Amino acid sequence: VLKLYGINEPSIAEKLSDLPGKSGNIIFGFYPRFPENHITLSLRGEDQTSLTGELDVMEREIRSRVGAFIFATGDHTMEGVVGEMLLQKKLTLSVAESCTGGLVGNLLTNVSGSSGYFLGGVIAYGNEAKMGLLGVSKQTLDTHGAVSDPVAEEMAEGVRRGLKADLGLSVTGIAGPDGGSDEKPVGTVHIGLASGDETFSGKYRFWGKREQNKLNSAMMALDWVRRYLHGNPFLPGL
Amino acid sequence: VLKLYGINEPSIAEKLSDLPGKSGNIIFGFYPRFPENHITLSLRGEDQTSLTGELDVMEREIRSRVGAFIFATGDHTMEGVVGEMLLQKKLTLSVAESCTGGLVGNLLTNVSGSSGYFLGGVIAYGNEAKMGLLGVSKQTLDTHGAVSDPVAEEMAEGVRRGLKADLGLSVTGIAGPDGGSDEKPVGTVHIGLASGDETFSGKYRFWGKREQNKLNSAMMALDWVRRYLHGNPFLPGL
Repeated sequence: VLKLYGINEPSIAEKLSDLPGKSGNIIFGFYPRFPENHITLSLRGEDQTSLTGELDVMEREIRSRVGAFIFATGDHTMEGVVGEMLLQKKLTLSVAESCTGGLVGNLLTNVSGSSGYFLGGVIAYGNEAKMGLLGVSKQTLDTHGAVSDPVAEEMAEGVRRGLKADLGLSVTGIAGPDGGSDEKPVGTVHIGLASGDETFSGKYRFWGKREQNKLNSAMMALDWVRRYLHGNPFLPGL
Repeated sequence: VLKLYGINEPSIAEKLSDLPGKSGNIIFGFYPRFPENHITLSLRGEDQTSLTGELDVMEREIRSRVGAFIFATGDHTMEGVVGEMLLQKKLTLSVAESCTGGLVGNLLTNVSGSSGYFLGGVIAYGNEAKMGLLGVSKQTLDTHGAVSDPVAEEMAEGVRRGLKADLGLSVTGIAGPDGGSDEKPVGTVHIGLASGDETFSGKYRFWGKREQNKLNSAMMALDWVRRYLHGNPFLPGL
């Protein structure tokens, strides 16, 4: 199983359209597993060595087309992959969560051993918490609103500073069903990532119900850390 | 459906043993839905009025035996019930999470409208975060360890103060599989609740895997708020 995030089924189908669904002894298919998409490679046959060889060729072929979206294989999860990378690079992470309300921290701490790289964070659900616990300035909040790139950046920088972590990751958005506006509809989410040297931010739009928007926001935030540590560009936002 | 927390199947069976599984037109049964236990009352018949009457009698009978453990009925959830009570009493809540890593906040914010009573919190996974963001004293940590009643109390008081909330709720424990000791085995969890006037704390022991221990810890913490707001005693700990 190859697990993908940030690409939808039609796009996967298009990019893999010239690959045969069945090639030699390998059958491949893909199916959505919200908010992920999974590509499965099934083997048939008995010759272990030649099967492994065929599998390698097919996986390489798939990776050459959608590799940037593949975050994990087999039983691995986004939070597990991010954790392994942080551990390997000896970096610590902190999170500042608004609309996800603790989900990013919850996912990270589902991984045994996460205390080795995850220091904790702040659930800054209200503006008071954003100012008081993260040092987001009132002026930034007044000028841009809580759901904005500048606030996402100040949240990421604030939690990084407050927890003395190498990385600060932030999420601020509108999970819905209430709270949306014409300018900032339900599903609008800004991600921030601060490394000390640089701070990044980006805007996305999700189209699900409350819990789906929370999950997509948390996955996108973790994917930012994965892509940052890989040196890959972040997924394009709005 | 009557949803119970904090009582196991054998205890439910014992307390309801003299009730007939089928009484008149009502069939009752119960089944576990980790970490909850559900009692289902199924109706058969057509006379709406008499059925409703029978149902009331049966429900009253059940409530007289296990009522303190019933936190919700039907589609309602623990986090939904706690939210409704907070809204009704015009009280705000903040959370300080160690071993749950954000799960309490995540559950609370799955409820639409939770921004009306949930201000946010701190994920204090490491001791640095407990001291820096929550004001837990180094002396308390050194004397009692991070997983202790005194630290749970200081965490609850710290987050309440920091977020200017009416209530501060805290969880600190050992989710496992690593980190346990003879004195504090995996599954040991301390809950704290600070109201300004008073601060409570209590120790529990859960027996599941990491994610199960996290879920039980979060449920127990939310149940403390529910019981506190009801004026009911907390579930007895260790």
